[in-house]
Amino acid sequence: MLGADLGRRLREGDLAAAPDTLNLLESTAAPDRAQAAALQHELSPAALGGEAPGHIVGVTGPPGSGKSTLLSALVRRWRARGSTAAVLAVDPSSRRSGGALLGDRARIDFDPADRGVLIRSTAAGTRLGGLAPATRAAAQALAAAFDVVVIETVGVGQAETEVAEVADTVVVVVQPASGDVLQFLKSGIMEIPDLLVVTKADLGPLALRTRRDLGAALRALGSHSPVLAVSALPPGEGIDELIEALRARRAELDLSPRRLRSRRAQALSEYEREHGARGVRALGGRRGAQELLRGEDPGLEVPALVAALERAAPGECSPPGEGSPPGECSPPGEGSPLRERSPRGARSPQQSRPIAARAEEAGR
Amino acid sequence: MLGADLGRRLREGDLAAAPDTLNLLESTAAPDRAQAAALQHELSPAALGGEAPGHIVGVTGPPGSGKSTLLSALVRRWRARGSTAAVLAVDPSSRRSGGALLGDRARIDFDPADRGVLIRSTAAGTRLGGLAPATRAAAQALAAAFDVVVIETVGVGQAETEVAEVADTVVVVVQPASGDVLQFLKSGIMEIPDLLVVTKADLGPLALRTRRDLGAALRALGSHSPVLAVSALPPGEGIDELIEALRARRAELDLSPRRLRSRRAQALSEYEREHGARGVRALGGRRGAQELLRGEDPGLEVPALVAALERAAPGECSPPGEGSPPGECSPPGEGSPLRERSPRGARSPQQSRPIAARAEEAGR
Repeated sequence: MLGADLGRRLREGDLAAAPDTLNLLESTAAPDRAQAAALQHELSPAALGGEAPGHIVGVTGPPGSGKSTLLSALVRRWRARGSTAAVLAVDPSSRRSGGALLGDRARIDFDPADRGVLIRSTAAGTRLGGLAPATRAAAQALAAAFDVVVIETVGVGQAETEVAEVADTVVVVVQPASGDVLQFLKSGIMEIPDLLVVTKADLGPLALRTRRDLGAALRALGSHSPVLAVSALPPGEGIDELIEALRARRAELDLSPRRLRSRRAQALSEYEREHGARGVRALGGRRGAQELLRGEDPGLEVPALVAALERAAPGECSPPGEGSPPGECSPPGEGSPLRERSPRGARSPQQSRPIAARAEEAGR
Repeated sequence: MLGADLGRRLREGDLAAAPDTLNLLESTAAPDRAQAAALQHELSPAALGGEAPGHIVGVTGPPGSGKSTLLSALVRRWRARGSTAAVLAVDPSSRRSGGALLGDRARIDFDPADRGVLIRSTAAGTRLGGLAPATRAAAQALAAAFDVVVIETVGVGQAETEVAEVADTVVVVVQPASGDVLQFLKSGIMEIPDLLVVTKADLGPLALRTRRDLGAALRALGSHSPVLAVSALPPGEGIDELIEALRARRAELDLSPRRLRSRRAQALSEYEREHGARGVRALGGRRGAQELLRGEDPGLEVPALVAALERAAPGECSPPGEGSPPGECSPPGEGSPLRERSPRGARSPQQSRPIAARAEEAGR
């Protein structure tokens, strides 16, 4: 699969390139990693001439809170309004040995013939790291072509933090009388979401009370995040209001600083996953690494930022005798024959030098 | 602080050595790391002539479920029965920027003049890794001297998994009508605990119903873990039954294989935290690392196992040009003047060679 080609197609809004993009980003084979880096390079802010315009929305909450039913209703409504939507559903149970009592978990309903919708279920990352890097990369890539990209995860307390690192907007979904989320919020363990949704509004007083309790807790914490009550069962209730709240949120968002922060955080976490605490120390600790990242071109994509960290840590790449296949630790994309200078690349000559140099080497 | 001395004192049941032990294990200064390794060496199964006899109990559950009140009641009852108890409470909110709405969280009541009780609150590890290595090491060290060592964590879904890696027994604490834990169990995301406790039994029917629902869910999952209802408010209800259930569980536990598995898992996770995915690849992946660990003396303590992994990955220790302070990556304990051959050490000459060799060098 030609990564750069897929990237260019997504950039031009060709949604048909999305499934292959996800496959490529999920692959762990070394040649595919290089292709994946080339794909991401084509979708960097520098190549796009700005941030990818799609709204990346994290949707999280305890199991059984009705996330899938809610997403089915949202996707239907988005499509009816002419918006395209991709949903990346992260399945945490796949990393457990025991089977699920509920059997097949609730699925998101959609028309498989509709190209304007893409639903993909992926396994959670290993325990160390949470959200898989492939999911983060996929969300960013799809945001170039889809109007909305949803990352759906299951959890309370930690799930929000992980999703917040990638998403523009975090929505926490709660079912009526779910006191745990309230407790997590109150205790300061859980980050405050941008939007809280109480599902199963058809349960009436219980849903209203949950909504009131959550609203009071948020206000006491100094937050103005909206709390909405929805019923996803036909005819549906509150879905349009939720879509409107998301639209309003997207409109007021200053995307650039948030996405930039997100790319830097991802680059550091991917670097640490690969090189460990000792690799971070070699950069002068997390502060040193953050300092380095701030000095890089804001238009760079995540793999290019990781490569910049690796270049700054001499010895972190292929120390003699490590025994890993040669090139395993070389910056992603290096040596890929498909790597080329982006026609839309708009970096200052000084900042873009390392990448451009590598692109030239690769082109030889 | 002399690590080996603290270790010897704990081995002889001197509870007064416990606070200094915790301070030493929490320190990140390089000389302290060496002393900490020496301490752990004195408490290795080889040095103890078997596993540390204390019962390591993980207690976890959502915030507000009444864990602290329950632990206050348990500690009181344990002391009344003549058992000593240490509680390591992990505070996850310390890694969040926002303050807690509940203000000071519930504290565990105890008599500070009583040497038979130790309560220590520690910060959670960074997001990558969960339970801090210091907490794991502390639990294992204190199990040499205290009858019960409790690790208290807050969370649903992931917290149990992390605690299960260290604890002999995992207790999940739930308040009445807390549907989220039930949902996590049913969905297969949460590991099945060894004991489930429904607090606030004074709430009557609601507590009984929660207990019944959880019991039914566990049976449907093929588990026979007991579900107990307790009220920690004076006069208290079900506390003796809980203590009895823990005692019975401890009596039937085959400690050796469980602790051995735990030490190996911890060694691999500490190694990975330090050297990253690339360090793991240098050992032939996780499988290769596990294979290596299985070949090591079962009597070795965690830092010695980490050192064994580091020796097996050439180039993972101080690659030229890394720029980190020399010796930063050297096996823990190496170069410590206090390192010495344990008088009770009972390793085969072949297996113990590397450690013994290092001990000799250190003794010179």
